[in-house]
Amino acid sequence: MSEQRTELEKLGEFGLIEHLTQNFKNENKHTVYGIGDDAAVLSLSDKEVQLVSTDMLIEGVHFNLMYMPLKHLGYKAVATNISDICAMNGVAEQITVSIAVSNRFPVEALEELYDGIHTACKFYKVDLIGGDTSSSLSGLTISITVIGRANKDEVTYRSGAKEHDLLVVSGDLGAAYVGLQVLEREKEVYNANPNIQPDLDGHDYIIERQLKPEARVDVVRFLKELDVTPSSMIDISDGLASEVLHICKSSKVGCHIYDEKLPIDGQTSMTAIDFSLDPNTCAMNGGEDYELLFTISQSDYDKIKGNPHMTVIGHITNEKDGQYYIDKNGAAIELLAQGWDTMK
Amino acid sequence: MSEQRTELEKLGEFGLIEHLTQNFKNENKHTVYGIGDDAAVLSLSDKEVQLVSTDMLIEGVHFNLMYMPLKHLGYKAVATNISDICAMNGVAEQITVSIAVSNRFPVEALEELYDGIHTACKFYKVDLIGGDTSSSLSGLTISITVIGRANKDEVTYRSGAKEHDLLVVSGDLGAAYVGLQVLEREKEVYNANPNIQPDLDGHDYIIERQLKPEARVDVVRFLKELDVTPSSMIDISDGLASEVLHICKSSKVGCHIYDEKLPIDGQTSMTAIDFSLDPNTCAMNGGEDYELLFTISQSDYDKIKGNPHMTVIGHITNEKDGQYYIDKNGAAIELLAQGWDTMK
Repeated sequence: MSEQRTELEKLGEFGLIEHLTQNFKNENKHTVYGIGDDAAVLSLSDKEVQLVSTDMLIEGVHFNLMYMPLKHLGYKAVATNISDICAMNGVAEQITVSIAVSNRFPVEALEELYDGIHTACKFYKVDLIGGDTSSSLSGLTISITVIGRANKDEVTYRSGAKEHDLLVVSGDLGAAYVGLQVLEREKEVYNANPNIQPDLDGHDYIIERQLKPEARVDVVRFLKELDVTPSSMIDISDGLASEVLHICKSSKVGCHIYDEKLPIDGQTSMTAIDFSLDPNTCAMNGGEDYELLFTISQSDYDKIKGNPHMTVIGHITNEKDGQYYIDKNGAAIELLAQGWDTMK
Repeated sequence: MSEQRTELEKLGEFGLIEHLTQNFKNENKHTVYGIGDDAAVLSLSDKEVQLVSTDMLIEGVHFNLMYMPLKHLGYKAVATNISDICAMNGVAEQITVSIAVSNRFPVEALEELYDGIHTACKFYKVDLIGGDTSSSLSGLTISITVIGRANKDEVTYRSGAKEHDLLVVSGDLGAAYVGLQVLEREKEVYNANPNIQPDLDGHDYIIERQLKPEARVDVVRFLKELDVTPSSMIDISDGLASEVLHICKSSKVGCHIYDEKLPIDGQTSMTAIDFSLDPNTCAMNGGEDYELLFTISQSDYDKIKGNPHMTVIGHITNEKDGQYYIDKNGAAIELLAQGWDTMK
């Protein structure tokens, strides 16, 4: 090993994986697209491609078992992986799940985890086809690989956005992040006095968004029914700002996102304000919403107009015009990715 | 969570995964075979199937960085996953690699790891198509999923062995385990006195078998060239005894393995004796050889007779006759799985 020591933080997650894999070249004829999108694309037939995505979740980094019940964790781990297949405009079919656990966990705890995985598999109609259990020296690690399918001419990469396309988001934003603030607050209260019952009243929607997010398989279906193939798509795991910048970078375009267009649920807004947080900041930078962000041609606008599941939040501009957030006063603020943890 | 507490050790690795996944049913029309073999099988076309296998490696459980250089670890992690595709009589085409690392590791350490992964990808002609890097609270975790292909009528499950079939093993056995003993001894010597240089002279073959095992892609190719499709196959990761029992259980058959037939390299035997170990015990129960164990019809015997890469070590019997190891005196000893760590 060389004498030099470069800290991991210096590169961040995306920089690190880019750096480590820069010398790898795809040589297999069945590999259509490798690293760099929500899922890899493999050839299947003249009409279909296969999608493959993988994710690892670490206790204490990606989840905290103090407020995340194991059944919810199992469900969420599956749903968030399926979300990556949705982001390619595909349908998930199989998953593999590997876990490493310390002997702190009894069999009954893993039964809870697999109960959640099972519930998600049934709901999303995916088969658990493989896996591995190991012992770990500390905590719980879950690694999931998901396999799906899409029609060859309907796969949506991050790189297809064109100038003048409309930026569209499914559902509403910021709820999962604000829900996490409530859970964190109740954890603090509990730590201070374990006799006080957690006060989650009136926060059911935002807590469910944090603990039991769903992959938007319905939006993928709606798009097909509406005969709309997005020019690009990504799922929102790290926050809208970070994801729109991924699309802009891959597609070599700029964008305008309008503050007043952001879809935010009333419970999210009210609770954000209780926490002295700006709801729009939560929508732009709060992670884990697992909504879909996509671009469509203006000619498809009439097909999605008024659709309750989709909101136009801006449009794509020329790359040299940059990436901007336009506030209520018309001021343009340059977009910067502010994921909550770049190594997450 | 229920009040009951059942320790993980009670079920062991195979029992645990069987227990946790017993309620899962495969419902997708493209899932041919799920959990329970070296790889899952998905339908691709009339002629071909896809193979998927996944594995997780944990520092301190599956590897020790004190004597396993990171480059070797990267190579081995890929090779041992490809070995699972070989065990299905298939050819690996793509892998995904996820890692979690603590900030104890600098970027340069991960460059070494990925250098090994890259070397293996080039050697085995597989494409790295996805992955994930995360921070961990302690140590290094590597999770790999490998995807391959096989002709539909040539896939080898564990369940196809028939009475009177011959039991065949590729290469030689026990070397990786004895190599580990040498590395462990030198680690002890180093811990006692860091000024003493490790003495690995004369142990190059067995140490390479431990640090840089290869997947037997050549054996899969030889079998095709010889026009032999094994009736069952598995790779030897946990030791011959454990693997032959997997075949017997899945195929509902018995077996006789002959002590004097076991292929053991001279360096393995000599070093085993130095360590007061029985070479045959190392061959039967030493893990990590990554050779292939398979069964063939007696009518195929002439095709493999005299082949330097394959050794007939016994035959398949009726299930009710049990699983036996026959020693030099003709005494039959019942086979028991003695993997070195059931939770590995």
